[in-house]
Amino acid sequence: MRELTCRLEKIGYQFYKIVKSHYEPLSCRGISFSFQSGGTTVPLEHRAVRFIDNFSTGSRGAASAEYFLEAGYAVIFLHRKEALLPYYRHFNCSQFLEHLAVNDERSHVSVKDDVVPKLLSVLLRYQDVSNQKRFLMLEFTTVTDYLFLLRAAAEAVHVIGRNAMLYLASAVSDFYIPSTELPEHKIQSSGKPLTVTLQAVPKMIGLLVQDWAPDAFIVSFKLETNKELLLQKSEGALDKYQHNVVVGNVLETRKRQVIIVTSGEVEGVAISKEELHQGVEIELKLVDNLAKKHSRYCRETKE
Amino acid sequence: MRELTCRLEKIGYQFYKIVKSHYEPLSCRGISFSFQSGGTTVPLEHRAVRFIDNFSTGSRGAASAEYFLEAGYAVIFLHRKEALLPYYRHFNCSQFLEHLAVNDERSHVSVKDDVVPKLLSVLLRYQDVSNQKRFLMLEFTTVTDYLFLLRAAAEAVHVIGRNAMLYLASAVSDFYIPSTELPEHKIQSSGKPLTVTLQAVPKMIGLLVQDWAPDAFIVSFKLETNKELLLQKSEGALDKYQHNVVVGNVLETRKRQVIIVTSGEVEGVAISKEELHQGVEIELKLVDNLAKKHSRYCRETKE
Repeated sequence: MRELTCRLEKIGYQFYKIVKSHYEPLSCRGISFSFQSGGTTVPLEHRAVRFIDNFSTGSRGAASAEYFLEAGYAVIFLHRKEALLPYYRHFNCSQFLEHLAVNDERSHVSVKDDVVPKLLSVLLRYQDVSNQKRFLMLEFTTVTDYLFLLRAAAEAVHVIGRNAMLYLASAVSDFYIPSTELPEHKIQSSGKPLTVTLQAVPKMIGLLVQDWAPDAFIVSFKLETNKELLLQKSEGALDKYQHNVVVGNVLETRKRQVIIVTSGEVEGVAISKEELHQGVEIELKLVDNLAKKHSRYCRETKE
Repeated sequence: MRELTCRLEKIGYQFYKIVKSHYEPLSCRGISFSFQSGGTTVPLEHRAVRFIDNFSTGSRGAASAEYFLEAGYAVIFLHRKEALLPYYRHFNCSQFLEHLAVNDERSHVSVKDDVVPKLLSVLLRYQDVSNQKRFLMLEFTTVTDYLFLLRAAAEAVHVIGRNAMLYLASAVSDFYIPSTELPEHKIQSSGKPLTVTLQAVPKMIGLLVQDWAPDAFIVSFKLETNKELLLQKSEGALDKYQHNVVVGNVLETRKRQVIIVTSGEVEGVAISKEELHQGVEIELKLVDNLAKKHSRYCRETKE
């Protein structure tokens, strides 16, 4: 716990430095915290061999963060370790050796010509953003890591008020096993069925809105597999937590369409077949929509 | 199911081609099937949002496969999607953009000098092995994928008898939810506790030894968190399945020591502090030990 507290203090300080160095130049472009990627894990043992995870690759968050950066935001990207990252997401890491060539003397390594155009395009954008120090990446794995980071981030961003956007695109575990109920050692398999009882993870959005970052522009996500439930669950979340936006999507169609729910309005955002064919990503449209809403929010007088 | 059967047929054919093309030149160096990496997943819903996973990064399998390849084996590397891979494992994929440089005209990408020596060393070995077509990689994710691949691999390797080694380093799920008991849609979180009942996954080693590849040299692994149980569980597995070797290890010390259990003998293999400091990996010693045992096995008359 002490180690985690120290780590949080370091992170809090990193957040603070980012916030301080970017506040002036950015005016209404806030700091976007991107809570993204591969979901959180729930250990099933203290000396964790097994855990519950979810399917999330972090695709939504990684793509969105890139568009927020291109739109001028500073982004603190909290991500699941090993999940997709902005810029890196365009490449298949498990094949990069295939894109390198060795000269005849076996003394030098170069990048093969066919991959240079794409690499150059992404690398230049990545370097620009890194040189401007507008991009910080921090990892989490378990749901506990995530919740601690969320709180540290929110408290750090409190100082820039409405200029902050909290983009809660992470697939946070809904169920977990409290520390006191975790078995110490690896659960032994004896051929018999195993029953596991999981408790609900407390929802943090309420705390974010009420206490930790009450002025921030807060965007949460709803993922359903059953499209009949989507609108009701999205509106329900907004109603319950009283934050700014819920972005709703159905598992099978999440890369092609989303709904954007605000109080009193539901917008559909989609990619046409033609756009899909041209490589347009839905996050381009989603981020554009949210950045405009965030700008308006910054200009409103606080009630 | 039809798609999976077609895929299996294709894989079976790939295996067959590998086996055919390497049998002669390799004599007693068999085909090593490396069943490695990140463990298998157990979906918790049909339209799977959540699943049970395990901690395994595939480090043991990826390192071992590299040493088997260096020792002259042909390796069919069945691995969890996204897990560590031979050769690639030496690099941190989430930082590769940092190792590239752009020229002043912003027209060309090159590899930075400081990383060239290490890259060159690994790349040359990787290219040699690829050019000799001794290395095939195949992915799995769920425990079902894995079991199907295991069976296809074992049946394909049947033809080279004792020359085949099955290296079962995968962290296979012990528990799963049968298809008929899986909920269709994403389990809704309502604030109430959730109880999940899991059945034991049938152990395949018995089928491998009895039916699928009775002549192959079969190596299985035992991982425990409680070192008091290690020897008993390792010997128990060998006794139960009557295969060739059990490699036992304890979670916390698995990179520094293992036990190698054969009928009638238990050997300890370890890395000294000095060796650790020099970057010696335990898989170097483990693979050397097993390759020697496999050679002896090939020379023995079949009972």
